[in-house]
Amino acid sequence: MTRNDDLRLRTVPHRIILSSAADSTTETITVRTDLERFFSPKSIALIGASQDLITISGQPLSHLGNHGYSGKLYPVNPRYQEILGHKCYPALADLPETPELALILINAARVADMLEQCGKKGVPYVVIFSSGFSETGGEGVALQKRLAAIAEKYNIGVIGPNCQGMMNVADKVWAGFGSVFFTKEFPAGGVSMVSQSGGFGFSVLALSSLDGGLAFRQMVTTGNEIGVSTLDFIDYFIRDKQTDVIVAYIEGVKDAHRLHGIGMQAMDAGKPVLMWKVGNTDEGQKAAASHTANLGGAMALYKAAFKQTGIIQIDDIQDMVDYGRMFRSRKLPAGNRIAMITVSGGAGILMTDECIAGGMKLAQLAPRTVEQLRAFVPSYGSLGNPVDVTASIFNDITLIRRTLRAIVDDPGVDCIALLNASLQGELAAKIAGEIIAIANTTDKPIACAWSARDVMAKDAYALLDDACIPHYKSPVRCGKAFAALSGYADAKRRIAAQRNEQPLAMEKNQLNQILTNRATDVAEYEAKKVLAEYGIAVTQEELATTRDQALAIAKKIGYPVAIKVQSPDISHKTEAKAVRLGLKSDAELAAAYDVVLANAKAYNAKAQIDGVLVQEMLSGGTEAILGITNDPLFGPAVMFGLGGIFAEIMKDVSFRLAPVTPSMAREMIAEIKGYPLLTGARGRSHADVDALVDAIVKLSALAVDLKDQVAELDINPLFVMAKGKGVKAADALIKPKVKN
Amino acid sequence: MTRNDDLRLRTVPHRIILSSAADSTTETITVRTDLERFFSPKSIALIGASQDLITISGQPLSHLGNHGYSGKLYPVNPRYQEILGHKCYPALADLPETPELALILINAARVADMLEQCGKKGVPYVVIFSSGFSETGGEGVALQKRLAAIAEKYNIGVIGPNCQGMMNVADKVWAGFGSVFFTKEFPAGGVSMVSQSGGFGFSVLALSSLDGGLAFRQMVTTGNEIGVSTLDFIDYFIRDKQTDVIVAYIEGVKDAHRLHGIGMQAMDAGKPVLMWKVGNTDEGQKAAASHTANLGGAMALYKAAFKQTGIIQIDDIQDMVDYGRMFRSRKLPAGNRIAMITVSGGAGILMTDECIAGGMKLAQLAPRTVEQLRAFVPSYGSLGNPVDVTASIFNDITLIRRTLRAIVDDPGVDCIALLNASLQGELAAKIAGEIIAIANTTDKPIACAWSARDVMAKDAYALLDDACIPHYKSPVRCGKAFAALSGYADAKRRIAAQRNEQPLAMEKNQLNQILTNRATDVAEYEAKKVLAEYGIAVTQEELATTRDQALAIAKKIGYPVAIKVQSPDISHKTEAKAVRLGLKSDAELAAAYDVVLANAKAYNAKAQIDGVLVQEMLSGGTEAILGITNDPLFGPAVMFGLGGIFAEIMKDVSFRLAPVTPSMAREMIAEIKGYPLLTGARGRSHADVDALVDAIVKLSALAVDLKDQVAELDINPLFVMAKGKGVKAADALIKPKVKN
Repeated sequence: MTRNDDLRLRTVPHRIILSSAADSTTETITVRTDLERFFSPKSIALIGASQDLITISGQPLSHLGNHGYSGKLYPVNPRYQEILGHKCYPALADLPETPELALILINAARVADMLEQCGKKGVPYVVIFSSGFSETGGEGVALQKRLAAIAEKYNIGVIGPNCQGMMNVADKVWAGFGSVFFTKEFPAGGVSMVSQSGGFGFSVLALSSLDGGLAFRQMVTTGNEIGVSTLDFIDYFIRDKQTDVIVAYIEGVKDAHRLHGIGMQAMDAGKPVLMWKVGNTDEGQKAAASHTANLGGAMALYKAAFKQTGIIQIDDIQDMVDYGRMFRSRKLPAGNRIAMITVSGGAGILMTDECIAGGMKLAQLAPRTVEQLRAFVPSYGSLGNPVDVTASIFNDITLIRRTLRAIVDDPGVDCIALLNASLQGELAAKIAGEIIAIANTTDKPIACAWSARDVMAKDAYALLDDACIPHYKSPVRCGKAFAALSGYADAKRRIAAQRNEQPLAMEKNQLNQILTNRATDVAEYEAKKVLAEYGIAVTQEELATTRDQALAIAKKIGYPVAIKVQSPDISHKTEAKAVRLGLKSDAELAAAYDVVLANAKAYNAKAQIDGVLVQEMLSGGTEAILGITNDPLFGPAVMFGLGGIFAEIMKDVSFRLAPVTPSMAREMIAEIKGYPLLTGARGRSHADVDALVDAIVKLSALAVDLKDQVAELDINPLFVMAKGKGVKAADALIKPKVKN
Repeated sequence: MTRNDDLRLRTVPHRIILSSAADSTTETITVRTDLERFFSPKSIALIGASQDLITISGQPLSHLGNHGYSGKLYPVNPRYQEILGHKCYPALADLPETPELALILINAARVADMLEQCGKKGVPYVVIFSSGFSETGGEGVALQKRLAAIAEKYNIGVIGPNCQGMMNVADKVWAGFGSVFFTKEFPAGGVSMVSQSGGFGFSVLALSSLDGGLAFRQMVTTGNEIGVSTLDFIDYFIRDKQTDVIVAYIEGVKDAHRLHGIGMQAMDAGKPVLMWKVGNTDEGQKAAASHTANLGGAMALYKAAFKQTGIIQIDDIQDMVDYGRMFRSRKLPAGNRIAMITVSGGAGILMTDECIAGGMKLAQLAPRTVEQLRAFVPSYGSLGNPVDVTASIFNDITLIRRTLRAIVDDPGVDCIALLNASLQGELAAKIAGEIIAIANTTDKPIACAWSARDVMAKDAYALLDDACIPHYKSPVRCGKAFAALSGYADAKRRIAAQRNEQPLAMEKNQLNQILTNRATDVAEYEAKKVLAEYGIAVTQEELATTRDQALAIAKKIGYPVAIKVQSPDISHKTEAKAVRLGLKSDAELAAAYDVVLANAKAYNAKAQIDGVLVQEMLSGGTEAILGITNDPLFGPAVMFGLGGIFAEIMKDVSFRLAPVTPSMAREMIAEIKGYPLLTGARGRSHADVDALVDAIVKLSALAVDLKDQVAELDINPLFVMAKGKGVKAADALIKPKVKN
């Protein structure tokens, strides 16, 4: 080991892992799950530890010691006898025991050898800080593969490479490097965080701990994730009894198919997951064959997973702090109706804006409550919601208690905000006391918008903090945090209800003949056979290979009819002018038959023509689009939207990861902006939403059953007829999953 | 004057002033504009000043003294000889001079008398703190009217009533009350603010001044605004040489028609206006006759005014601080292309998300720049944008200077962000020095995302602050602030270009016969005559009053035709089944003629029937909607959207206050989501956007010319034909402005 083995301070660009572009260069291995040993190891080896304490190789030993690590520390480096008073060992094999954690702090080229030594020694967890692997491409990719193989061989839980380590705040294990590790201490609490970004991730921890922000239990950065992944850590945090709130900062997870299950586990465990997903600009998204796949970029599927499991999406440090504080109280509202008590009118308007925008409602106070309030709220106050008790509380401190009591007792109120303007000093502390007294008697969440600077209302804020009553400097922040809490509680109720539904499952192996080993797109007439197998209604139609056959089919169906050339090589039939609609007679049909075939030939002379589909013409109804995108990382997801323009131009669509239950399908339908078009807007008749729900559920069953055969599927349009008249697929396209 | 005259500490709910509901109970009077005297009075009378320094009546004298007011103070109260060492006068008339400002601190009932005394004494400015006027309804409304009359009679500039006063930070005039006035001091600077909320407004000042936030010049709260309004203050701030940035916190302005002009003045003066508009939840909006008026709620018109004048909308204290700091540098980017330099990959992704979402673009670095960078950026860095110089700057401080130099010199870059992670200590200060050295050589805005806590990078931050280089703790905040700056610069360019356009003006007084003194809606055939007068193409059509006449008209026009019953009492003809489309022959027309008349009768037996309109059938083209809403406060505004569903259900429409120039019309068209439908999406032909622009401009001329006659107007649908084929109004409705 030479001086040059030291890792100099440098970072490398963290490669974005897009869900839609599975990373074939990175091996992911099965990992250990007893991560408590990782966060609280009894002994740590520091491989490549340096006496130059400012380097990456030198920092961890110094930070561990400075922050009170109580276990054994074993620096390993043949160049030194000791570092910072710790005996330094020439090789890992020389250690008197097997360390529970090893930190690898040497250059990329030698990491594999060291990892092998860790394996031989039986080290359960290894953090590889070193950069120079898949993120640099070329040689690094091969090196990383080697690491993965070694880790698998010895069953080592590897964190990294290319990461900045871990900080167990609660147990004082600061095993990492970077500016933030020079901080003296952070308040310990129940927030556990995993971050795919090292540098910025630790900044987030540091900034969100400021000024009564969040208190962390532990935080880890995961880098290239060849071993323990972000989702593995979340999975562990769910099981970790002392974690209350989970935060994840992600660019993209490679094991996205697990996100749904882990989100559901977290919900069951009552641990809110705040997820900061970055890299949302789908600038370079590739064009897919189907509309569904085009609209279902990575972010659409992340958002579907968040919605389905109650994961709370955050966009900045402030969100994280504000929502994290709101969840500390561990009270959830039974509904989305908020009441506000203010000592000054204006702030109520602001907070109302935020709450309504976040899906909440202003509670309608019961007549009895209003009567109670009338007895003591000054006449120049307001008895509506927001209730304005006015600054009379300066004169009568009991006013706030009595008002809060009356409102907390109102059965139409689910949660309460107090807007205390800039109240400060002794009076502020007294008011805080009153709020706490009432809060202790109720399960309804209570929070404050309180704009006094910290120094001006120190005692009041300290009292509230101790009582886990969140307070925010601005009504905007308070409103946003309440909306997040309410959204989470709402998700919890929805998910509980959906638990009573059995997702539809179907097995249709006989379809293998159409889909298995298929390289070309499945044309309409065959795609619809697949749909019909799953019980999705399709237009009445038959394939003709001669003009006479077409005429005979038309006779059977009855005019008017549509005809469409069927070819696996012509997915966009309209573009090829290979479609004619509304043919009313034998003569029109006969003429059109020849034209569409000629057009198809002109469009693509080499196209294999299966025949001409003769089809009933549908009239009335609303055109919808249903589809499947089978994402390489997430697995199959179902999309719903209205007619082509709404979906394609307005991008007014909804996604859910399959399987989709009936109530989830109903949510999908109701959440698009164009929903009123299905419920009688603009003088239309009500559409058959029940049949639409049924079709979505069946399409979801298809998506699950054929997940190995179908890459993308569009039903476009699906005609949604009037209530009681069902739905019908008028066109369909399947893009098969091509095996490598 | 009795002890009870003291204003006790109380506030009253601040009534929301909705632009769409003009307030008939409040008189607005012409006001003085020499507001410098108001903010920096040489002498102040405090009418009703109290020795009880904790009351509203007691606070101002105490605050003025404590914060170093250097002018004369004259407490007026017959109960005292002196207060806080100031001689106390029994009445205003007894003062040895005319004070430049009087503060009225007595109960509502006696305010009018005191205001009258101020008038007699010749006091130019009076702040009325007292509550109990129009905000309480009833008696208070009458009292307020009396105040307005007195103010007008004596030409007094009245601020309030029901406000919390003013704070001139720069000149130490703290003439107000409330918790924030107990703060020792605030840093003085160039931000001037006006707030319609008293309590929360001053909290905003206090919170936004924290930790190197904003530095204020002056702030005023306006309450019920019987005299000097929010816009009067903005107008003054534009003229005030020492104001750099203007902030307004508003619930709604009663003189909204001035907003556009004042926004343009601010733009001309180079003073960004940050406007926090609250009360955006249009929950209780009333249904209007036309789609345009339904879609054009107060917020739509505020947003139009903001867009047209470059006013920057903010939503929270943090926005205000972040944007305010960005504008301090007084540099504007020449375009919207940003380059980022980072020492750590992850943050670049975050910031890219924000910048793209805010309408910016990642700059494409010139090959020459990339070559320059290649010479010194480490191989494991990145030469793309964001440029990742890696933490090698720890080893080579000149790296940041050389990188920044190369990028600043790239002609394809308009502004530059440095993402410095948590860099801290001495190194941080050195890097700040390098950044400042380059920033001093360029007009391109430079800002930093720098996540080190304040205590860890104190020197670096102080250096940047002195050099007016904004820095933000998170890349999200930095990205948002850059997007605000870029949006402002973009608005400035757009407005400059629009200055070269003369808005179309037309005078068509001969229309008075159709519109003047009209109480009923103007039916299609007459509404279209009005449109045609302004040069907007309409369908070929004629009104028939007999079946034979209808047949003759159809012969002239040519089949197919449409027929529509015309009645001022039937605005929704389709709903009444009084419309038939696509009639192909005399026989069809004759039969339909009788049917539509019968239907109209069945729908409304009392309806006055003007006749049956026989109209050419249009085919092809895209259906659009154009409209006018003539807001009581804003004046006439023009709306554009696509077909009924897009406008009504998706609310995909754009508004501009009239007059609208051609380039503004083009912006209106391009900004709706459905715009691609006009430019060839989904295999359509390109629509005649030029003709559409022309129609919008002409409609705007109509809106201005007929602003006293037209309350609402819909052209729905307007057919936009293929390029070169023009547009045609197929239906129209005018709701006249009914005189009171």
